[in-house]
Amino acid sequence: MLHLQSTTSQRWFDQVDQSLPEILIDHAHCEKKAAGTAMNLIFAYVDDIELCREMTLIVNEELEHFHMVIDLLDRRGIKFRRLKPSSYGRQLNDLVRTGEPERAVDRLLVAGLIEARSCERFSALADHVQDAELAEFYRSLFESEARHHTTYTRLAKHFASEEVVMQRLDELAAAEAEIIGHGEDLPRMHS
Amino acid sequence: MLHLQSTTSQRWFDQVDQSLPEILIDHAHCEKKAAGTAMNLIFAYVDDIELCREMTLIVNEELEHFHMVIDLLDRRGIKFRRLKPSSYGRQLNDLVRTGEPERAVDRLLVAGLIEARSCERFSALADHVQDAELAEFYRSLFESEARHHTTYTRLAKHFASEEVVMQRLDELAAAEAEIIGHGEDLPRMHS
Repeated sequence: MLHLQSTTSQRWFDQVDQSLPEILIDHAHCEKKAAGTAMNLIFAYVDDIELCREMTLIVNEELEHFHMVIDLLDRRGIKFRRLKPSSYGRQLNDLVRTGEPERAVDRLLVAGLIEARSCERFSALADHVQDAELAEFYRSLFESEARHHTTYTRLAKHFASEEVVMQRLDELAAAEAEIIGHGEDLPRMHS
Repeated sequence: MLHLQSTTSQRWFDQVDQSLPEILIDHAHCEKKAAGTAMNLIFAYVDDIELCREMTLIVNEELEHFHMVIDLLDRRGIKFRRLKPSSYGRQLNDLVRTGEPERAVDRLLVAGLIEARSCERFSALADHVQDAELAEFYRSLFESEARHHTTYTRLAKHFASEEVVMQRLDELAAAEAEIIGHGEDLPRMHS
């Protein structure tokens, strides 16, 4: 359903165990970035009204999640602050082709893959952490991230045939698995 | 209350009478841009949690208005399309100083002045148009634009003293009155 070609490795769970507060702060930034991505897609493809409607729902939901994470940090006495982002998003965005309609297809599929990976990691995190409130919180976010992935994949088909989109999704998902598999030392939601 | 230093002139009402559909299309784009501005402010000043909360409300409201205008166009058989924007926003944004905290103050005050002018024009439009549905629609938007103006002015005081903010607002409002007074031939919400 999520079109991912790998599952999260032990390496990331070790980062979670060592640096949970930092990963939670990064999560807030990820929600903000997800809202920003959806907003940018409204600007880029404003004549696609269905896309604008779906992106509006995603902007609203991601900003709501952003504030939920900020509140959670606050309750735990973790100070929200700016963080150097992981290179995951940049590496994926570097795969977006120039020239339309390829660019639209890739932007939507990349956004959808990031949602899919977030979904997979939230689910893994919910099972991994001992903290019941945190586990419940991550379970509550799971469904919307999965839904956003489906929405992005469906919208990509406004710009190319089903076959072309699914083949490109396969290519991008392979790249995504390699990027997340390689990971990085900085403890982040997508490290 | 709106800190504007002029009211809309007959020149603009003549444009409205001659090119209402184009002005309605531009209005949709203005709502989208207002949402984008608020989102950009979240990214720029993410450590100011109150600002992020207020900008989230504005993003949601402006996107809701965007879709309300799109629906109104649809009911009237006016095709929504891309439009060359008026130079009003660019001219105002050119006044934003570089270097913080001046940049933050100016970005917030400029965003607030655009909301104020929209508010003034919606009110003028509601009184001007013969069309009852349109008049009612513009009256319904009036209150939120006025509220957004107040919010932006208040948030500017997170970055400078009340006195400094109000003096700068006075300067920017004078510039705004000159820009909108000069106007332009392209019929737009802020022409």
